[in-house]
Amino acid sequence: MAILHARPGEVVDISPFADRLTSEKTTALFKSADLEVMRLVLPAGKSLPPHRVAGEITIQCLEGAMVLRVEGNEQTLHAGQLLYLRGGVVHSVHAIEDTSALVTVALVK
Amino acid sequence: MAILHARPGEVVDISPFADRLTSEKTTALFKSADLEVMRLVLPAGKSLPPHRVAGEITIQCLEGAMVLRVEGNEQTLHAGQLLYLRGGVVHSVHAIEDTSALVTVALVK
Repeated sequence: MAILHARPGEVVDISPFADRLTSEKTTALFKSADLEVMRLVLPAGKSLPPHRVAGEITIQCLEGAMVLRVEGNEQTLHAGQLLYLRGGVVHSVHAIEDTSALVTVALVK
Repeated sequence: MAILHARPGEVVDISPFADRLTSEKTTALFKSADLEVMRLVLPAGKSLPPHRVAGEITIQCLEGAMVLRVEGNEQTLHAGQLLYLRGGVVHSVHAIEDTSALVTVALVK
């Protein structure tokens, strides 16, 4: 995963990659005391296997569409949609279009 | 502030309000154990006075453009741009266009 590591107050562009998405990689935008934010890049047909994160997370679809499977329930997240998951919840992701998503993680002390 | 209170895993639409922005209000999308997420609505010319939040926050401009003043430094955040601030940092916001923004707050225990 590429690392950008923005500083506090630094403006980060998260507009859609569009045509250049397939040449982009998942990037850590920053990790600070309480929050970690990354931009997930998942070309159509690619998946993240089931995994869990200790803290709560939000997943915001920036472009494309992805299916989230959370504790056996599937739903599709399109561009302009957001959801959150409690910490420790097993989830997997499958991109049904070329997709990028903003993932915000609450860091558990 | 209107309260929506999404549940975990519930899909929330945060696409631009566009023409109906001026009839929308700032809304709390959810507040859970570690994170609070709200959608700030600020019509052109309106401001939030200097304030601070205990935990770290991200501010993502969903539409429009806003000037953030953070510890004496001003910068403009346009749609598709994001920044984060450390907890306790005094900041103010002034909308230079009809603006909505997603604000994610790390809840400090």
